[in-house]
Amino acid sequence: MPSRFELANAIRALSMDAVQKANSGHPGAPMGMADIAEVLWNDYLKHNPADPKWADRDRFVLSNGHGSMLLYSLLHLTGYELGLEELQNFRQLHAKTAGHPEYGYAPGIETTTGPLGQGLANAVGMALAEKTLAAQFNRPGHAIVDHHTYVFVGDGCLMEGISHEACSLAGTQQLGKLIAFYDDNGISIDGEVEGWFTDDTAKRFEAYGWHVVPNVDGHKPEEIRAAIEMARSQDDRPSLIICKTVIGFGAPNKQGKEECHGAALGDDEVAAARKQLDWPHAPFHVPEAIYQGWDASEAGQTRQQAWQARFERYAEAHPELAREFARRMECKLPAEFTSEAMVQRAQEQGESIASRKASLNCLNELGPQLPELLGGSADLAPSNLTFWEGAKAITPQTPDGNYLHYGVREFGMGAIMNGIALHRGFIPYGATFLIFMEYMRNAVRMAALMGKRAIYVFTHDSIGLGEDGPTHQPIEQLTNLRTTPNLATWRPCDATETAAAWDAALKRNSGPTALVFSRQGLPHQARTKQQLANIQRGGYVLRDSEGTPELILIATGSEVGLAMDAAAELEAQGRAVRVVSMPSTYRFDGQDAEYRESVLPKAVTRRIAIEAAHADFWFKYVGLDGRVIGLKSYGESAPAGDLFKHFGFTVENVVKQATELLEG
Amino acid sequence: MPSRFELANAIRALSMDAVQKANSGHPGAPMGMADIAEVLWNDYLKHNPADPKWADRDRFVLSNGHGSMLLYSLLHLTGYELGLEELQNFRQLHAKTAGHPEYGYAPGIETTTGPLGQGLANAVGMALAEKTLAAQFNRPGHAIVDHHTYVFVGDGCLMEGISHEACSLAGTQQLGKLIAFYDDNGISIDGEVEGWFTDDTAKRFEAYGWHVVPNVDGHKPEEIRAAIEMARSQDDRPSLIICKTVIGFGAPNKQGKEECHGAALGDDEVAAARKQLDWPHAPFHVPEAIYQGWDASEAGQTRQQAWQARFERYAEAHPELAREFARRMECKLPAEFTSEAMVQRAQEQGESIASRKASLNCLNELGPQLPELLGGSADLAPSNLTFWEGAKAITPQTPDGNYLHYGVREFGMGAIMNGIALHRGFIPYGATFLIFMEYMRNAVRMAALMGKRAIYVFTHDSIGLGEDGPTHQPIEQLTNLRTTPNLATWRPCDATETAAAWDAALKRNSGPTALVFSRQGLPHQARTKQQLANIQRGGYVLRDSEGTPELILIATGSEVGLAMDAAAELEAQGRAVRVVSMPSTYRFDGQDAEYRESVLPKAVTRRIAIEAAHADFWFKYVGLDGRVIGLKSYGESAPAGDLFKHFGFTVENVVKQATELLEG
Repeated sequence: MPSRFELANAIRALSMDAVQKANSGHPGAPMGMADIAEVLWNDYLKHNPADPKWADRDRFVLSNGHGSMLLYSLLHLTGYELGLEELQNFRQLHAKTAGHPEYGYAPGIETTTGPLGQGLANAVGMALAEKTLAAQFNRPGHAIVDHHTYVFVGDGCLMEGISHEACSLAGTQQLGKLIAFYDDNGISIDGEVEGWFTDDTAKRFEAYGWHVVPNVDGHKPEEIRAAIEMARSQDDRPSLIICKTVIGFGAPNKQGKEECHGAALGDDEVAAARKQLDWPHAPFHVPEAIYQGWDASEAGQTRQQAWQARFERYAEAHPELAREFARRMECKLPAEFTSEAMVQRAQEQGESIASRKASLNCLNELGPQLPELLGGSADLAPSNLTFWEGAKAITPQTPDGNYLHYGVREFGMGAIMNGIALHRGFIPYGATFLIFMEYMRNAVRMAALMGKRAIYVFTHDSIGLGEDGPTHQPIEQLTNLRTTPNLATWRPCDATETAAAWDAALKRNSGPTALVFSRQGLPHQARTKQQLANIQRGGYVLRDSEGTPELILIATGSEVGLAMDAAAELEAQGRAVRVVSMPSTYRFDGQDAEYRESVLPKAVTRRIAIEAAHADFWFKYVGLDGRVIGLKSYGESAPAGDLFKHFGFTVENVVKQATELLEG
Repeated sequence: MPSRFELANAIRALSMDAVQKANSGHPGAPMGMADIAEVLWNDYLKHNPADPKWADRDRFVLSNGHGSMLLYSLLHLTGYELGLEELQNFRQLHAKTAGHPEYGYAPGIETTTGPLGQGLANAVGMALAEKTLAAQFNRPGHAIVDHHTYVFVGDGCLMEGISHEACSLAGTQQLGKLIAFYDDNGISIDGEVEGWFTDDTAKRFEAYGWHVVPNVDGHKPEEIRAAIEMARSQDDRPSLIICKTVIGFGAPNKQGKEECHGAALGDDEVAAARKQLDWPHAPFHVPEAIYQGWDASEAGQTRQQAWQARFERYAEAHPELAREFARRMECKLPAEFTSEAMVQRAQEQGESIASRKASLNCLNELGPQLPELLGGSADLAPSNLTFWEGAKAITPQTPDGNYLHYGVREFGMGAIMNGIALHRGFIPYGATFLIFMEYMRNAVRMAALMGKRAIYVFTHDSIGLGEDGPTHQPIEQLTNLRTTPNLATWRPCDATETAAAWDAALKRNSGPTALVFSRQGLPHQARTKQQLANIQRGGYVLRDSEGTPELILIATGSEVGLAMDAAAELEAQGRAVRVVSMPSTYRFDGQDAEYRESVLPKAVTRRIAIEAAHADFWFKYVGLDGRVIGLKSYGESAPAGDLFKHFGFTVENVVKQATELLEG
């Protein structure tokens, strides 16, 4: 029977070997945290390598994702489908073992990490999802949702602001089943952290209401075990276990120094580490006894079978709940769910209201049908209009709610939403002003990269928000969203397009959707049945000329009404003008060439795009022969009407520009 | 002589009147913090309304910028050039009294605030600039730099992650002259904060090494005075004064509730507040005695004159230092400064190196000439290559350094840089990987909005960074930078363009510059004298065909070498090809039409843009008849060479696409 130290050394050896072979990567964290990981995974982690998607597995997140070889080693050693050849192929094209853990690449990776601090926030989201799901589904005697979320964090994660946002909220929400391990090795890339990171971290987390286990020797299994026991005994406080570790533990000349953080150790040092660790085996060779010591297949199967048996008893007692649980964990919408009717109704009602208000109407309609909706706002609920009639705040007293008051924590919200989506069981939507998308920007990108269904409600979408002024008025943000791969962005022009956008967002399970709504009222547009259906194509002809148009006006959101008015005026002057409403360029670009040509015929080169946002993006659709009525500067503080006039969003200016273009 | 309460009520009355008249704005914070502001401004703040740019004034930052009427009231009442008509014009187009305080609009506004948490971080930057400048310039008996930085913060600021980053670093740097006032009113937009914000804030700040004065009654002047005295007696710890206040104090039916936070009180409540506060005066009317009680003109003049006398003694004793101090506070480069020679030399040396390495070479050349350079990196110095030969870390022991180890705190870095630039005396540059620009994104925008010279060194600029994979590989970030108004972005193709980019960044005092550098080596390009000069035009012909080109290849950064190779191959196949290097579209767009036409003649419609970044931006230059060889998806983890090949950045693919275009 191998010792704990020998088991941990398998991680160290695989990590330094893989990094050495790739000549790229981070050996320091895996070697430093190997002992902690060994204790957690062998003694506590509830998982089944044969079924990485088992609903009630413990979640494990490596927030310091650069230490990816730690996770790959663990997955490989415990029996996940991740062969030695994948470890040998570390950081190579098409390998499952990417430089940082990439969700969907190797089984058992719960989230993509690397951008520091976000893994920790994802873990908060997972723990919150667990607690909420348990409150919604567990019944007396039937704890079918009952697992922990473990997360490893480094100095970098704790310096990042998002750690404050997420951990503060985790304390407020009393997430007792969240357990974080802090790799307190005193080293970051610039060197010894004492020059730039002098927080009393234990005190800081106590201030958040966390249970803190300080001063744990991260290389002593018994101390680690004792700390985990204490942490697991907490019901209403998340735990932070502060582990003193030596970065690169085992590399005799480089351990404890920045040198071993982010580069291969070098052949000599790898050899010296083998000696130091008493690990005489060849590179990538793990003795069978060590594999046996790690193998979690049998234990995992037993655990899952026990849960399965429990779940079957639950299903007998609560058949409907069990079916609903299964549905939600599969991320399937209810079979009877329909939101097309909502779009149809919006068109029939023909209300001229702000799209944020139209969005609230949608939520009031969708909410009762979709108990998996888990809403929230970063302290702007009364402005974002996200707290619908059936919304119920999630609190320690009401953990079965469906709405999170995230507080003024945009980035935390975004990354917590990712954790909720990754956990499954919920469709998270979260809101802020469009401009403050920037605060949460990288979390939006991570959702898109991972292909997870998160829905963003970004209101106050342009200078149309008025008096709050340039700090609050988005200009370049729409372009930023639209150029983010795998993010679907919608900027609807009225209540009908708003409903269509919600419909699309809910049905899109391959990535996130940004719903961009106005503060101000928007006029209703008349539509034929065909036009109504075409909204889902992202761009469509909303008004056409008789015969071939000589000019196409392309507009989105609040500028569609303007384009329609300008087209009417131009038509009165004898011009043949088409108006294209383009709520989602993402969807439009995904249509076949024929449809796109039917909307924007190549032959019509006189085109004007109109959007109260940065102009440059639109040259993609109007080309060098067209024009863009957009913005190139920041906004100003004034009533919305004054601003639209000031910046040229008037019928007069559109007509003038159109005339110049037609006569030019 | 009016009472303190009466003086404070002038703020309350002006604030509620202005918000009422605009029917837009935030009366709650000004009314709640009026007493604190009254004590601070009347008893402590060292300022001179007649000279808002006085170098040694105390800095005052309203981080909860939505309470802008508090600041406008203070400026108006104490004698700044901000007449009553401006207050009456609150939130109207072209008024100096924008919805949020806008730097440069009204005198005395030290920074633009509104995006929460950033004002606090700006204040940290100002306090750090003060301390560093004092260490660099003060001499025994001559404390010419010796002022405080005061900042008001709300619950929102403290929930934001950036407050963690900035305040943690402020503690480490022992910024004893930074004093923050926390408006602890228990209310945010969603309602009572206890549902989402339960931090023990005193404990949290103590964990950062701050001096905390808890439980101050924010409506009792003597308690506020005592707290300020304690805070001012601290040498080596920043202070947080936690003031219990009532939001909207004085509005009898709305105070203490969210209702008064962000909307006009309504005529009835304004009238009721007048009664409650015993303020019988008409809207916008302030009795003369009250004005006299507030007037800081005389005291301000006396203070500044005293400093001026001290400065003259300093100038006598240290004439060179005094001249240098004046120069730096005016943000002027040294008269003898030249960096053109650096560009010239880079061209002559012709090194084929990574642009991040070329940037380090520039810093080594610039550093000794520009003591105002205040560098730093968010814990990536060895990767960003920003720690030049003469760099010296700023620490409590060496406060006269020129380099900040910001730690893993990108957003904090960005906003601290803004504070440093706003303070004057320094040109801040700060670095991270280009992808993590997203973490600091809104601070970059704020620098651009305020027109401040901050220089960002963003390295690892594309998939060319290789194995770290998609989380670290920028795709849409260049577009995001380029579409940010008033931000100059450069992506140089070799060491020469890198030097030119640094040259341009330093000379640009009207806004920030983003310098985007490669991780990998880039080939040197030959240039004529004219081509060398043309780099400053942002885009120029680097290689031309004989006669009119039939195709133009536009490229930036690492793709310029590829374009040159492809052009050579195409020429060998008998094609007439021009290559345009476009390091800065910002600069190119600013050239006159004639120059732009000379580089990109309208008649040449066959154009291909090549950039290892998101494709869409480039349609602005290639139009609907051109093509873009760019990216539409995320990157992958693999060696750089494999990735460029995988994603089509090869001579073969460029030649193929060009041939299709030419023959199509």
